[in-house]
Amino acid sequence: MDEIVELSAGVVRTSRTMNDGRTIRYYDTAGQTRTVADQRPQEEQPGIGELRLDPLVNEWVAMAAHRQGRIFLPPKELCPLCPTTGDLLTEIPENDFEVVVFDNRSPSLRPPDGDFALPDMVGSDTDEGAAAGKCEVICFTADHGGAFKSLSPQRVRTLLEAWRDRTAELSQLPFISHIAPFENRGEEIGVTLAHPHGQIYAYSYLPPRVTKMLDVARAHHTKTGRVLFDDVLARELRDGVRIIARNEHWVAYTPYASRYPFEIHVVPLQPVADLTDLAPAACDSFPSIAIEVMQRLDGVFGIDMAYIAAWHQAPVREGRDLLRLHWQITSVRRAPGKLKYLAGSESAMGAFIMDMKPEQSAQQLKDVKL
Amino acid sequence: MDEIVELSAGVVRTSRTMNDGRTIRYYDTAGQTRTVADQRPQEEQPGIGELRLDPLVNEWVAMAAHRQGRIFLPPKELCPLCPTTGDLLTEIPENDFEVVVFDNRSPSLRPPDGDFALPDMVGSDTDEGAAAGKCEVICFTADHGGAFKSLSPQRVRTLLEAWRDRTAELSQLPFISHIAPFENRGEEIGVTLAHPHGQIYAYSYLPPRVTKMLDVARAHHTKTGRVLFDDVLARELRDGVRIIARNEHWVAYTPYASRYPFEIHVVPLQPVADLTDLAPAACDSFPSIAIEVMQRLDGVFGIDMAYIAAWHQAPVREGRDLLRLHWQITSVRRAPGKLKYLAGSESAMGAFIMDMKPEQSAQQLKDVKL
Repeated sequence: MDEIVELSAGVVRTSRTMNDGRTIRYYDTAGQTRTVADQRPQEEQPGIGELRLDPLVNEWVAMAAHRQGRIFLPPKELCPLCPTTGDLLTEIPENDFEVVVFDNRSPSLRPPDGDFALPDMVGSDTDEGAAAGKCEVICFTADHGGAFKSLSPQRVRTLLEAWRDRTAELSQLPFISHIAPFENRGEEIGVTLAHPHGQIYAYSYLPPRVTKMLDVARAHHTKTGRVLFDDVLARELRDGVRIIARNEHWVAYTPYASRYPFEIHVVPLQPVADLTDLAPAACDSFPSIAIEVMQRLDGVFGIDMAYIAAWHQAPVREGRDLLRLHWQITSVRRAPGKLKYLAGSESAMGAFIMDMKPEQSAQQLKDVKL
Repeated sequence: MDEIVELSAGVVRTSRTMNDGRTIRYYDTAGQTRTVADQRPQEEQPGIGELRLDPLVNEWVAMAAHRQGRIFLPPKELCPLCPTTGDLLTEIPENDFEVVVFDNRSPSLRPPDGDFALPDMVGSDTDEGAAAGKCEVICFTADHGGAFKSLSPQRVRTLLEAWRDRTAELSQLPFISHIAPFENRGEEIGVTLAHPHGQIYAYSYLPPRVTKMLDVARAHHTKTGRVLFDDVLARELRDGVRIIARNEHWVAYTPYASRYPFEIHVVPLQPVADLTDLAPAACDSFPSIAIEVMQRLDGVFGIDMAYIAAWHQAPVREGRDLLRLHWQITSVRRAPGKLKYLAGSESAMGAFIMDMKPEQSAQQLKDVKL
């Protein structure tokens, strides 16, 4: 049964069920009707993976043993994220779309059967749990050769609405603790599909970095009565030298202690916990700064930069008043022919070494002629 | 002034000063005399880098702004880690060597001038400190085309003695908090010099992963009275299925919650805090298991595997009774043409997703015919 819902900013969501039971959601702005059925044969779904505790650092590792065979950089004519236009039946049955979100065909995390509870994190003898959660794919455009930086402002607004919608819906699932929409771009970081798209990971546990941010924010609040991220933002606004773009509602900067050659945080000036809390005016002014930042990033070396662009949100059920929404873009490209690798110091010890200061990358980003 | 010191296992260390003031140390077992002078012109040393606090996670990031121009994959005839044999004056003035350690020419961390203290870690307004520490390079062999797995057992014993010596000496420096010898291997992980070598990072601060391990070990000890790593080892010995090699004094296994397609921990059965605490018998039985593990790793796909092999030691001045020595080898190679990349979930959220279970990688490692 289709479900049609009107969202903000003139976006209408049509949800349909795919042949294998997965859901696809079309986010439209031009009154489209979505009726084309998924023609593909049914496919058996593997079971849920395992969640194992790394006892040395008390962190969960998800094990999804069935993902080894997934498709790797198919040619355009075999792209599963393009609309279905000829004989190739893709993930999107319709022959055109604006923004679509569908359940990942090879998800790392799956909804659990029945009631779900995480195992207690108790040390070296913790039994494995289920790798519960939900993984979705979000396509930004039907244009296989496009990129985030080339989207129209209206399209980015629709994309933001889709991210907000997914955050709102996934937050309702009782087994979800944290929601992270992100985009990986570039073969250099392992992207297997070139079509412009992102992913939404909804975790049943707090990801380790979120746990750490929450612990540090809580200690800061206990000590000062203030929200840490607000103090960090105030310092960046005061220092000024690392700000690369700004409008009435958003600011973008290379943070004081950047870990990557190009790391950019895009932050709403009115702090909120997550995407659903953004005021309409903040939503409407996001596309201009988002597109500007992505154009500056590709402009530095005049090449398509590999990057990870991830939304940090407050967790669904805790720390809502301690963590703040921000969009973190990190690129490992330090020069046209050179990448930063995470080797011994970063990978084994967690100790990041930067070859350039963020004041320098900020200047390079500001110097780009748009 | 040369300094000659007799170490264990018949290893003699000769320390000499290079033209720019750096020290080179030859670890020899055959009575060599080391007298060849460094003929290269003096080179100005850049100043110490910055240590900046990432306030969102309360972790130090070292900024070494002068490393951008370092040499990248030179051909064999220009290798700076080969002995000096013709017109090319390399880092090693002698025309042959067994194992050498010299101060890194482009170190991320440098000894501080005068007294040194870390800034307090206090949040969003912490001032930067000095990126104090020491970075050394360790060459395993004069053979440019060699590899750890091809070293003789005697050479690995000498290498171990050099690591032990560096740990002992660097521990004496008042500004050093933690010592991590590691080897990065493979262009896939950014290695810029193919000559078989490793690095020794001596940090003036606890690397973030060490801080985390120490916190978790302390909580476990408070709760149970036991050392966490000993319980982890006991579980691996009990489970057995992930053990890939073993001798009287060491065991090697793919840990229960591995984060990489091939992750191996090589652990002394008699627990110790660091390399200097290893008993002579444990030292003498390390080469056989170390070489076996590296041969198994390369044997899985019949190719040279990219890996990071890092010694985890207890910190120099705290947690000596809570953290245990182990050698952690991680490889991002999941199939002959495929790497595991750290993208959105791992990099931005710290949440590792594994595509295969360590029981499977253990089986593949055990199946290798040596």
